[in-house]
Amino acid sequence: MDDKDYLRLAAELAERGAGWVSPNPLVGAVLVRDGHIIGQGWHARCGGLHAERAALADCREDPAGATLYVTLEPCCHTGRQPPCTDAILAAGIRRVVVGSLDPNPLVAGKGVEILRSHGVEVETGVLQAECDALNPVFFHYIRTKRPYVVMKYAMTLDGKLATRTGASQWITGEAARQRVHRDRHRYRGILAGVGTVLADDPLLTCRMEGGRNPVRILCDTHLRTPLESRIVRTAGEVETILATCETDGGKIAPYTAAGCQVWRLPERDGHVDLSALMDRLGAAEIDSVLLEGGGTLNWSMLEAGLVQRVQAYIAPKLFGGGAAKSPVEGAGVELPAQAARLRSTTVTQLGEDFLLEGEVDADVHGNC
Amino acid sequence: MDDKDYLRLAAELAERGAGWVSPNPLVGAVLVRDGHIIGQGWHARCGGLHAERAALADCREDPAGATLYVTLEPCCHTGRQPPCTDAILAAGIRRVVVGSLDPNPLVAGKGVEILRSHGVEVETGVLQAECDALNPVFFHYIRTKRPYVVMKYAMTLDGKLATRTGASQWITGEAARQRVHRDRHRYRGILAGVGTVLADDPLLTCRMEGGRNPVRILCDTHLRTPLESRIVRTAGEVETILATCETDGGKIAPYTAAGCQVWRLPERDGHVDLSALMDRLGAAEIDSVLLEGGGTLNWSMLEAGLVQRVQAYIAPKLFGGGAAKSPVEGAGVELPAQAARLRSTTVTQLGEDFLLEGEVDADVHGNC
Repeated sequence: MDDKDYLRLAAELAERGAGWVSPNPLVGAVLVRDGHIIGQGWHARCGGLHAERAALADCREDPAGATLYVTLEPCCHTGRQPPCTDAILAAGIRRVVVGSLDPNPLVAGKGVEILRSHGVEVETGVLQAECDALNPVFFHYIRTKRPYVVMKYAMTLDGKLATRTGASQWITGEAARQRVHRDRHRYRGILAGVGTVLADDPLLTCRMEGGRNPVRILCDTHLRTPLESRIVRTAGEVETILATCETDGGKIAPYTAAGCQVWRLPERDGHVDLSALMDRLGAAEIDSVLLEGGGTLNWSMLEAGLVQRVQAYIAPKLFGGGAAKSPVEGAGVELPAQAARLRSTTVTQLGEDFLLEGEVDADVHGNC
Repeated sequence: MDDKDYLRLAAELAERGAGWVSPNPLVGAVLVRDGHIIGQGWHARCGGLHAERAALADCREDPAGATLYVTLEPCCHTGRQPPCTDAILAAGIRRVVVGSLDPNPLVAGKGVEILRSHGVEVETGVLQAECDALNPVFFHYIRTKRPYVVMKYAMTLDGKLATRTGASQWITGEAARQRVHRDRHRYRGILAGVGTVLADDPLLTCRMEGGRNPVRILCDTHLRTPLESRIVRTAGEVETILATCETDGGKIAPYTAAGCQVWRLPERDGHVDLSALMDRLGAAEIDSVLLEGGGTLNWSMLEAGLVQRVQAYIAPKLFGGGAAKSPVEGAGVELPAQAARLRSTTVTQLGEDFLLEGEVDADVHGNC
């Protein structure tokens, strides 16, 4: 095994933290001495050991003189945990191989610098693309202080979210739906509009075994979510935020009593100011959001430049219907050149269905 | 090389006739003696030699005692050409390996039977799936006497055929558009509605080098196609059919004068009876049609059970727009279980775009 192989192993370990470490990054680490792995670890939950310390704690022998492979530059500041650079130096590590540099421009390179200044040999940028790919959420969140938003929808091959009567259960099959629940675990929040609640009365929970429920966030400008909806009735068990422009305390009180957090936000173009909502979610350390909106909310988010990734589940069937709902509605762009464009698109077959996904490269205003 | 390898070569040769042999099948043939290929041929154009005779004509030595590999059961009746079974027997072929049996239930197996009764060793069903896949058009046409219809559309990942203003040039990139021109060559006719002509004034010709123009067929119930449209202006050079319910000879005359064929058809649900149109196209030996309709025509064709295959070109971009056109409109189905379903779906990347396609497995009435 060479440097890349050990780092690839570290990346696989890092992945195990998915859904648990928010708002921290996914990080994995492997310790190697004399060609043998002597310890491995990963950041397993927010507030728990960082990957470097987890790998040191896992060591079956003295790590002095070993090489540390770590997917992300070791931290050098005290947050919820003490600096990893201290632990590396204390353990007598001789060489450190780093995948991604810290994306925070105020910190980037400092951890590496401290290690080098203490005589540790450091290599950076090894397997960087793979290591960077572990943390689109963290990289976005740390730079913008707003959640990384994944717009997800399931449609027919003729672009319908539902039949003309609004029926949408089910468009995709079991394998695709399982993947969605994996992502409900993976991302910290889930965002929908009140229209979806009124139409489908969904739970928006994670039904993956051993999974974690996302924080449910409803855009509800005029507070129309029914008190008897499944979401309000389960707000005592599953964290639930209602984002609204409603200011009438009497209208708000029963939601609060049911266990919902009601966030009053400024109004913009007749609905909740979505940029303000993203700021507040970011401040609440919700680093990522799965957007499972209808066409109106999806367009508003896209139009506001707040979507980072699009996941389209496509079922090999056709509903037809000029009145059937489509994934992104609202005003829409005027000219083809104004389209929001995706890059790094991939397609995955899931049972009979396909998942076509990519990162938003340019929004409808041409911003990258 | 074994039997399958020779038959695979024959299938590759057969493919060369695509776009030229209509309404005949694609057929390829290879002659082998003592482990050497001594002749090969394919059906190159309607009215030309059948593949078996082409391979015999290609022989550089006496074919007596050779094995003939042919992708489709040799014919035993006189059509535009004399029976191939005669030529095979006259040449002294010892053994024949057949891919597909003739799909015509009145003829299937007869060619094989005649050869066997004359002492020729015949094997059938070798590489059958690959050989059958050459001729979905012929197999459909010979059984139903109606064209095989491929519904083709290009849409954004949010299911839009155009922006809200109707602009649609371009949704997909160069590679996808080239593929469409290959199919305009491959299929015998191209079908669009008058709405498409009014919106885009298309030519609907094949711009592939060395390609053949499809017969242009417009569904135009009330004969609203502008006389100054590019299609009417080029009707002298490119075969053009207007399918209409209009009976006023005075309205029809200028289209006829411009070179269009005007087909008067019965009306059904306020538009041209599409089943009657398919019957008439079949009678005119148009065995295949590329349906490049808008959402209304696409739905009418789908609803009438007249679509055999769907090709969705998907561009990795989003237009949004509740008023933007989508690929299949009309009434649409009421419940998800009533969707038209595709099988044998495949996905192909073409530049930045994706082509997701499949055969219609069950139409919106559940008919297979």
